[in-house]
Amino acid sequence: MLMTSNDSRVKDLTKRVLARDVRAISRALTLVENASESGILLHQSLYPHTGNAFIVGITGSPGAGKSSLVNELALSLMRAGERVAVLAVDPSSPYSGGAVLGDRIRMEAAVESDKVYVRSMASRGALGGLSGASADAVDILDAAGFSYILVETVGVGQGEVDIARTAHCSVVVLVPGMGDEVQVMKAGILEIADVFVINKSDRPGVHALERELRILMTLITTAADAWKVPIIRTIATKPEGIKELIDMLNEHRTWLKSTGKGEEKAKQYIRERILQLCTKEAAKLISNRYAAEIDSGLADCLNRKRDPRSVAIELVGKL
Amino acid sequence: MLMTSNDSRVKDLTKRVLARDVRAISRALTLVENASESGILLHQSLYPHTGNAFIVGITGSPGAGKSSLVNELALSLMRAGERVAVLAVDPSSPYSGGAVLGDRIRMEAAVESDKVYVRSMASRGALGGLSGASADAVDILDAAGFSYILVETVGVGQGEVDIARTAHCSVVVLVPGMGDEVQVMKAGILEIADVFVINKSDRPGVHALERELRILMTLITTAADAWKVPIIRTIATKPEGIKELIDMLNEHRTWLKSTGKGEEKAKQYIRERILQLCTKEAAKLISNRYAAEIDSGLADCLNRKRDPRSVAIELVGKL
Repeated sequence: MLMTSNDSRVKDLTKRVLARDVRAISRALTLVENASESGILLHQSLYPHTGNAFIVGITGSPGAGKSSLVNELALSLMRAGERVAVLAVDPSSPYSGGAVLGDRIRMEAAVESDKVYVRSMASRGALGGLSGASADAVDILDAAGFSYILVETVGVGQGEVDIARTAHCSVVVLVPGMGDEVQVMKAGILEIADVFVINKSDRPGVHALERELRILMTLITTAADAWKVPIIRTIATKPEGIKELIDMLNEHRTWLKSTGKGEEKAKQYIRERILQLCTKEAAKLISNRYAAEIDSGLADCLNRKRDPRSVAIELVGKL
Repeated sequence: MLMTSNDSRVKDLTKRVLARDVRAISRALTLVENASESGILLHQSLYPHTGNAFIVGITGSPGAGKSSLVNELALSLMRAGERVAVLAVDPSSPYSGGAVLGDRIRMEAAVESDKVYVRSMASRGALGGLSGASADAVDILDAAGFSYILVETVGVGQGEVDIARTAHCSVVVLVPGMGDEVQVMKAGILEIADVFVINKSDRPGVHALERELRILMTLITTAADAWKVPIIRTIATKPEGIKELIDMLNEHRTWLKSTGKGEEKAKQYIRERILQLCTKEAAKLISNRYAAEIDSGLADCLNRKRDPRSVAIELVGKL
């Protein structure tokens, strides 16, 4: 898996991504998204150039207006002199890998300039692979010199949690006046939030939501030196509250640096990423090396003679 | 990991679960949910008694009225002489494992009788572990002699897809008149659906939604002998359409059996489950055996000297 000298295509693409060539960045992201051999080599060759961007994850309930918020955020950051990349991760099907999403097409057609780059990406599910491609994509954008990377995800689930781990700062977007089941969704992402945004804050129910959030937050045990999660009100369509949000992002960034929590978080994240990639590679190895044993174990499970876990433990025991 | 003769507690619990003792079933599910040693042993000892239930996954957008639908479905099936278990999988936080969900409490308090059993369960995220506990829980309920197991999940994501794989039949619940972003969620679960339910079908927009679904379905390439996914309209709160839904579930069950697709699906699912459990076991093994190598790889990644994938590939190469 080492880069060979004759892989001039990867070399050329690496150079062009580092030179911030928009077409090269798009091509690189496609290679990484497809998890192709070239994509892996390219990621490997760009990784040394990462570590400079501030990565912000933006997630929340459907209908919370995340896209509008991200757009306004990107524009404001750009006006403040930042180079901003937006990565919108779609929960498209893990079965076909195809995207039947109108949203996706809309995003692909969006602004591409030297200062703002917008890209959507499918979050294909596979064994431990959900966040793999999006983590690699973030690295590509980081190497390409974007100072802010906004990663937008839809819904709640393991994918969002993985992406929150990737991010330096996780923004959870809520709206007032949503039903009971939406509150359930909130609970799942409550603990990954570094910043809460109540968008569409001109709607009724904003006080109730804020109160509820504060109550939920008291239920979570946090250390004395932990970050105090703020609640920012926005109306993305006006726009209102965007400056306050950016100020808070910068405050969180400063906090991460001054307390050493940023490095701690980075270490934990890289450790998890190594382990996740290990499981992926181990799955490949086991499938190839023990194909016959898997087949016979499978037959035993179908006949209820053995259970899947016993088969797995025996297989891994051979390693 | 083999069951020892002196583990009388597991033996006793196994017997009582097979005898359909409600308290024993609840205890067994708790052990499995906590992924305790006893839970693993218990699952192992009950697995030979599984394979009789019809497992129906019910998923969809938040606010689609899944809980009402599941309640009506369970009651109707019970009246038809079935023993029904409902497993509601909550997207609670993977960080604390705690549930701050009002919904969960509501579910815990629900009907427990010999014929209907309701249980909610957190979908704790971990490396490849999201669906692990819920798959084991379904096996416990299967061994306990429930003829129908309804697995309710909230939202869309890898968790739902994993649970859909567990199920013999996946029901996707939608409602008319939801916004654009909700449509995106639909796309993600479109291809896992065996049956579409349009709930709250007395609302405006039902025709548009049905038309849209039919268009989306034409975009998916399916084999000539594939199941034709039906669209059933329901109003769970009345209730209306429940009988039609049950008829369709039974039709799908007959189809699975007569075409051999059921066995094909079961094989594929068990294979995936074995591999997923392998990755989990392999991760444990790698973490323990190569702790020092992981630490030095991590340091290299932090310094951008190496990338996480190269570290992982090297570690797995040692196996």
